[in-house]
Amino acid sequence: MGIAATAGPATRDLSIEDACTGFASLRALSLELVAQLSDADTTAQSMPDASPAKWHLAHTTWFFETFILRDRVPDYHRFDARWAELFNSYYQAEGAFHPRDRRGMLTRPSLDEVIAYRRHVDEAVIAAMPLILERCADLLDLGLNHEQQHQELLLTDLKHLFFQNPLGPALWQRTPFGRTHHAGSEVAWHTGRTGPVDIGASDARFAFDCERPAHRHYLPPHALADRPITNAEWCSFIADNGYGNASLWLSDGWAWRTREAISAPLYWRRAPDGWEVFTLAGWHPIDPSEPVTHISLYEADAFAAWAGARLPSEQEWESAARGHNPLLGVQLDDARAVRPLFVPRTDGLSSLFGNVWEWTGSAYRPYPGYRPAPGAIGEYNGKFMSGQFVLKGGSCATPRGHVRASYRNFFHPHQRWQFTGLRLAKDL
Amino acid sequence: MGIAATAGPATRDLSIEDACTGFASLRALSLELVAQLSDADTTAQSMPDASPAKWHLAHTTWFFETFILRDRVPDYHRFDARWAELFNSYYQAEGAFHPRDRRGMLTRPSLDEVIAYRRHVDEAVIAAMPLILERCADLLDLGLNHEQQHQELLLTDLKHLFFQNPLGPALWQRTPFGRTHHAGSEVAWHTGRTGPVDIGASDARFAFDCERPAHRHYLPPHALADRPITNAEWCSFIADNGYGNASLWLSDGWAWRTREAISAPLYWRRAPDGWEVFTLAGWHPIDPSEPVTHISLYEADAFAAWAGARLPSEQEWESAARGHNPLLGVQLDDARAVRPLFVPRTDGLSSLFGNVWEWTGSAYRPYPGYRPAPGAIGEYNGKFMSGQFVLKGGSCATPRGHVRASYRNFFHPHQRWQFTGLRLAKDL
Amino acid sequence: MGIAATAGPATRDLSIEDACTGFASLRALSLELVAQLSDADTTAQSMPDASPAKWHLAHTTWFFETFILRDRVPDYHRFDARWAELFNSYYQAEGAFHPRDRRGMLTRPSLDEVIAYRRHVDEAVIAAMPLILERCADLLDLGLNHEQQHQELLLTDLKHLFFQNPLGPALWQRTPFGRTHHAGSEVAWHTGRTGPVDIGASDARFAFDCERPAHRHYLPPHALADRPITNAEWCSFIADNGYGNASLWLSDGWAWRTREAISAPLYWRRAPDGWEVFTLAGWHPIDPSEPVTHISLYEADAFAAWAGARLPSEQEWESAARGHNPLLGVQLDDARAVRPLFVPRTDGLSSLFGNVWEWTGSAYRPYPGYRPAPGAIGEYNGKFMSGQFVLKGGSCATPRGHVRASYRNFFHPHQRWQFTGLRLAKDL
Amino acid sequence: MGIAATAGPATRDLSIEDACTGFASLRALSLELVAQLSDADTTAQSMPDASPAKWHLAHTTWFFETFILRDRVPDYHRFDARWAELFNSYYQAEGAFHPRDRRGMLTRPSLDEVIAYRRHVDEAVIAAMPLILERCADLLDLGLNHEQQHQELLLTDLKHLFFQNPLGPALWQRTPFGRTHHAGSEVAWHTGRTGPVDIGASDARFAFDCERPAHRHYLPPHALADRPITNAEWCSFIADNGYGNASLWLSDGWAWRTREAISAPLYWRRAPDGWEVFTLAGWHPIDPSEPVTHISLYEADAFAAWAGARLPSEQEWESAARGHNPLLGVQLDDARAVRPLFVPRTDGLSSLFGNVWEWTGSAYRPYPGYRPAPGAIGEYNGKFMSGQFVLKGGSCATPRGHVRASYRNFFHPHQRWQFTGLRLAKDL
Repeated sequence: MGIAATAGPATRDLSIEDACTGFASLRALSLELVAQLSDADTTAQSMPDASPAKWHLAHTTWFFETFILRDRVPDYHRFDARWAELFNSYYQAEGAFHPRDRRGMLTRPSLDEVIAYRRHVDEAVIAAMPLILERCADLLDLGLNHEQQHQELLLTDLKHLFFQNPLGPALWQRTPFGRTHHAGSEVAWHTGRTGPVDIGASDARFAFDCERPAHRHYLPPHALADRPITNAEWCSFIADNGYGNASLWLSDGWAWRTREAISAPLYWRRAPDGWEVFTLAGWHPIDPSEPVTHISLYEADAFAAWAGARLPSEQEWESAARGHNPLLGVQLDDARAVRPLFVPRTDGLSSLFGNVWEWTGSAYRPYPGYRPAPGAIGEYNGKFMSGQFVLKGGSCATPRGHVRASYRNFFHPHQRWQFTGLRLAKDL
Repeated sequence: MGIAATAGPATRDLSIEDACTGFASLRALSLELVAQLSDADTTAQSMPDASPAKWHLAHTTWFFETFILRDRVPDYHRFDARWAELFNSYYQAEGAFHPRDRRGMLTRPSLDEVIAYRRHVDEAVIAAMPLILERCADLLDLGLNHEQQHQELLLTDLKHLFFQNPLGPALWQRTPFGRTHHAGSEVAWHTGRTGPVDIGASDARFAFDCERPAHRHYLPPHALADRPITNAEWCSFIADNGYGNASLWLSDGWAWRTREAISAPLYWRRAPDGWEVFTLAGWHPIDPSEPVTHISLYEADAFAAWAGARLPSEQEWESAARGHNPLLGVQLDDARAVRPLFVPRTDGLSSLFGNVWEWTGSAYRPYPGYRPAPGAIGEYNGKFMSGQFVLKGGSCATPRGHVRASYRNFFHPHQRWQFTGLRLAKDL
Repeated sequence: MGIAATAGPATRDLSIEDACTGFASLRALSLELVAQLSDADTTAQSMPDASPAKWHLAHTTWFFETFILRDRVPDYHRFDARWAELFNSYYQAEGAFHPRDRRGMLTRPSLDEVIAYRRHVDEAVIAAMPLILERCADLLDLGLNHEQQHQELLLTDLKHLFFQNPLGPALWQRTPFGRTHHAGSEVAWHTGRTGPVDIGASDARFAFDCERPAHRHYLPPHALADRPITNAEWCSFIADNGYGNASLWLSDGWAWRTREAISAPLYWRRAPDGWEVFTLAGWHPIDPSEPVTHISLYEADAFAAWAGARLPSEQEWESAARGHNPLLGVQLDDARAVRPLFVPRTDGLSSLFGNVWEWTGSAYRPYPGYRPAPGAIGEYNGKFMSGQFVLKGGSCATPRGHVRASYRNFFHPHQRWQFTGLRLAKDL
Repeated sequence: MGIAATAGPATRDLSIEDACTGFASLRALSLELVAQLSDADTTAQSMPDASPAKWHLAHTTWFFETFILRDRVPDYHRFDARWAELFNSYYQAEGAFHPRDRRGMLTRPSLDEVIAYRRHVDEAVIAAMPLILERCADLLDLGLNHEQQHQELLLTDLKHLFFQNPLGPALWQRTPFGRTHHAGSEVAWHTGRTGPVDIGASDARFAFDCERPAHRHYLPPHALADRPITNAEWCSFIADNGYGNASLWLSDGWAWRTREAISAPLYWRRAPDGWEVFTLAGWHPIDPSEPVTHISLYEADAFAAWAGARLPSEQEWESAARGHNPLLGVQLDDARAVRPLFVPRTDGLSSLFGNVWEWTGSAYRPYPGYRPAPGAIGEYNGKFMSGQFVLKGGSCATPRGHVRASYRNFFHPHQRWQFTGLRLAKDL
């Protein structure tokens, strides 16, 4: 059982053996995810926002190699120094990097060579684990959480790639789920706390820098929906001309929808008898009772306006989610098929974690007192704090142990290739 | 003395005579601003963000005509019904409108015809004033404040247009100012309130919908700089390679700066002996002691990072500005030359109002409980609440009476053709 | 009667008095064309391909000032040396010039100032006429022909500008024409010469450098249509899905049509009872018997394919037109309304000159032995000899005396804001 | 020895056995070219103009399958009907096709599956050869020549792809060549024929439709350079500011060069001691005595202007090349390394075939009397006859037997990823 996989104690509190086991199992999951893919499948890039699977495998490895092995472990020999330019993502402090939108050009190194690179780095990390736990356990935690983020991106980027192919390839078979989900009833409203609440990560366990420092925030009287919006409800929005009614939309959203001719969630297409949706298990009819996913903030906001509600603030969401078990709903333990689904209600709220990332109405900005770390690591989150919105809760493609109530995911308001959905809120 | 010009009582509390006088004098200022301009000067459009002066004159008139005269005053006859398409800005509920980026194509109607249009509408408003005060004084207030916004835009848009011309035309002569400004001393820090504060417009006086509802907000320990940053300080940032140091910049900002080859504020150019700046009085050497202006949020944020500080939140700024006189520093009473300048310090803070719009680090989002008005008027502010940042305080081109502590201006983070500047803040 | 206006003897053979009269009358026509326009009308620019009327007036004046007065006439004083940057069009050898797509930003100088500029230059040319005829009569010819080209552009650019305005402004009243035009009969075919023919300007009269040197060309067996295609015939093409049938189109043309959503000639719009067309006399129903105009080469080529024919080569056209009177059909003697029309048939061919520019299938390339002139004047034509197609014959907006059989007009295949039309050809 | 590989008799005159052998050996070469490549190498697409190697393999196969097996051979069963959408290039008459710029998204089918597809089709063609020779030998010829075109594209597209990779991968080792090439002497001039000459393919052997019909053309007095321009001469052009001197350039070329910041041929980069060039054998110092290659028409034209010369017309080139052996200079017999080189002079002209494609000054337009074939095959050449220039002679990457004097290759004037070079011409 991996360290990060429990959202339990930070790596620094683990035995060397447990740390090694956790590291190895987490790293192994990445390779399991590509086990069914060809060299070509892992090389192609479908859009600038997405990266090739092979690149994810190599970049996460470069992260460990650079910030731990190169910087903190004496006598480490780099696998291939020329690869730094290829697999540095965006760290200006680390020198020149291959342009993001040209990652699909890197047919070399091959997938096999990248796997050899992973093995080289894994062995060096394992060998140096005593030293790492002593000197830079926080960096190891960061590297592991970083890899978990890329495991999710690997799946969503691959989905976007396969979607481009008229043949509609599938990564895995569609799994039927038990009917634990929504059965057609109306949204119920759950009253949230009013007044000052604590926000942000306050304990010693791992959290990204953007989740800190913990601080107080004033909540207005409000309520949250008990569950995310479903495909059936989204179909009602479409049927009621939601995509064609400018008065529901943010101005930038209306411009986006018009320019891109948007009339349904990403991956939906009309079929003779209803909508079909592209999944990592190929094309299927939509399931009306599943949470809607692959919608932009603009669409989520327009839906909320249409429903006479609004998006929750990130603080309303976090406050409500505190005390809920973030492992409940998690699906990605190994490389088996995942899909959004509903999980049983607890405390009046269902499906907070592990089905779809829920758009909030909060811009992704630093918390009061936030300071990025010095050096290249400081570029991890801080420099992205403009133009994006916060999402909460995790998705079906988020690895076990990776989310918590204080977790802040973020995307631009037009982006929707992640498993994004929405939960309504309203003023009281 | 105009109603809006006092930030005093709302129109509904005025006598008919005072309301008429206020309306007439505010409307007259718009015409004074274009008195030196040719038909061509008022027709050209320099970029999609900017509008022709003639269009501003007509659009503000259309606003009164549509939402007051057409909708609320019986038997009003429209000046020319075909013009609605030309001068509706963005109100989807009002039907089709001429594309924003093609406003410079409207060589007809002429400036003279637009002035006749203004006269027609002004006379109708004056004649109907008793009815208006009774039925829709709030719409009249909105129309007047709307026109004041366009008076400022008219000046900044004209500046951008004249800047395109290699001949460097001038609207007015450069006025020398007394040395009330900053004389080279360091920024001093003014400690702000900590804990819950009241934010937003709470009284009956006019405020835009986005300033309401009033609500509580928790402020962290912090301090504000006593004054805005000067041109001299900006030159130090440039000299220290501030524009070339990626680690100071937001990621989107660095991409913008690289794509657009930005290396100085808008309107600056290098001259043999230093920087020159384009103004509405033509090209001049920069004045080191003036507040720096025409910078984007991205530049302001990078400067703050370079200075080891940050931008204030909108709530920190508003809290500090409460109780300060928003008329202090105002310059635009009539169509005489304006420029950013420092105003005497009060309560430890100088130049809060009337010199440059100060970027805050706050995304422009709705306040808790915000609801846009029904109908077309509801499109005034609400639909712009994504992707923009809040600016506070007003500029040298803001008409007297138009600003207050709760005022929220907003622009996209790359925009800088307004009189935008910055004041530093820091955590305590 | 002006020199150029007769396509008669070159200026060098004229008396000083005749040269002055010709110069003055030709220059006067330019001002007559803008007599009904406002400063704003002459300042706006509707697209990068088009220029403001005021700019045309100033640029043609700059041409005389620069290449004749400045370079050849002692002691000439420039009107304003700063204007060279504004009104140089594209002559790299003449130094920096204002970007073509920003000409609409030049609200200063005003139309009145430009008219004063014209007067200044005209007087200097008249005063120096003896010297000019002796030293550089060829440059004067070039300047006059250059101005005629811009007279036509002034009209077509203005038309494009007025078209942008939802009010549909008109320059002049629509003139009814007598029924000299096509009355519904089929195209008749006129057999052309086969074998070697002489191509290009061979006599001493003025011709642009691209019309020379004269040379031999081999013509295949072919026939030309007796007249251009009409609006009625174009409607048949539309009705038969001509715009939707990829097999008719050049590949670049199909891409253009798809990207730009082209489904009719420029300036056409559907009305309840048929097509309407925008003209310099406002919106009118199309006249089925007029020559179709404002079509691109791509459209012309697709029509020809649909009709089982092809476009003529420029040599086929020129060979057929030799001996025809290029004054027949000319309309633009003064600033009265013009429109495409048919002119009586002579020698089996009708309407060769003065109705619509006829697209040929010939790429605009240099003739064998072509050499551009040295210096800036050499940039006049030569550098445009890639990517464009030759058009022949002149249009209703071409000034009298400006065309001849050897004349080579040229535009890119997607451009259609000129009075462009087509005449079919076929192989025999 | 293959049919097309000899430029000898057309397939229809071959025995069934020879036809089968020729077909098989030509098809085999395509697979040899990718033998060293991974699935990923053959899947990636570096720009919209280029295609993945795997796509070339499949598209050429689709061509045989569609136009011969599907249309002409009874009872043929398609390998996978869904693939038509993937591997149809641009034949509108064949239905929808995958967008050209998204070919790199097709990670499925795999390279192995495409190879199986080739085997399936090859076996069917061999089995049906008697029928094919009887019914549609011309289509078989077309398919074979089509595949040869794609063999060359496969190499140039791969080169462009590998160039994107900072690791600079190589397909093969650099082969040293004997010093058969140019040794520093000046260009010598070879006088061409004047007057009427025969142009175009006139015999029964295979030629593309655009090479027909044969016709007469009048040549002016002129001379051709005895050899192509070398890298050393190109360096002189660079050293003399050829890329910075606007007066040398076509207007569109200057705009292209400025927009794209072009200052050397494609694949050149500055190294500490001179220029390096990227090749299919990796990065190497340029060889001054090799023909310059990877230049656009714009660059070639500017060079010619700089040299006081011009580009030859396609007819001048063809006339001079008639009677020269098009096999002399050919390198691509099998999948061994190729590079531009000089070949011995014959009749005063050297290196006409098989080193670099030589830009001509002729626009690619139909010959007099040209008619495209009916149906989808008619889209092969005709619809590309706008906006492109003719190139003659073949390159080091052109398969043996594929070129002849009448061959017309064509590209847009800015394109330069083919092995393009130039030979000067001048007027006499």
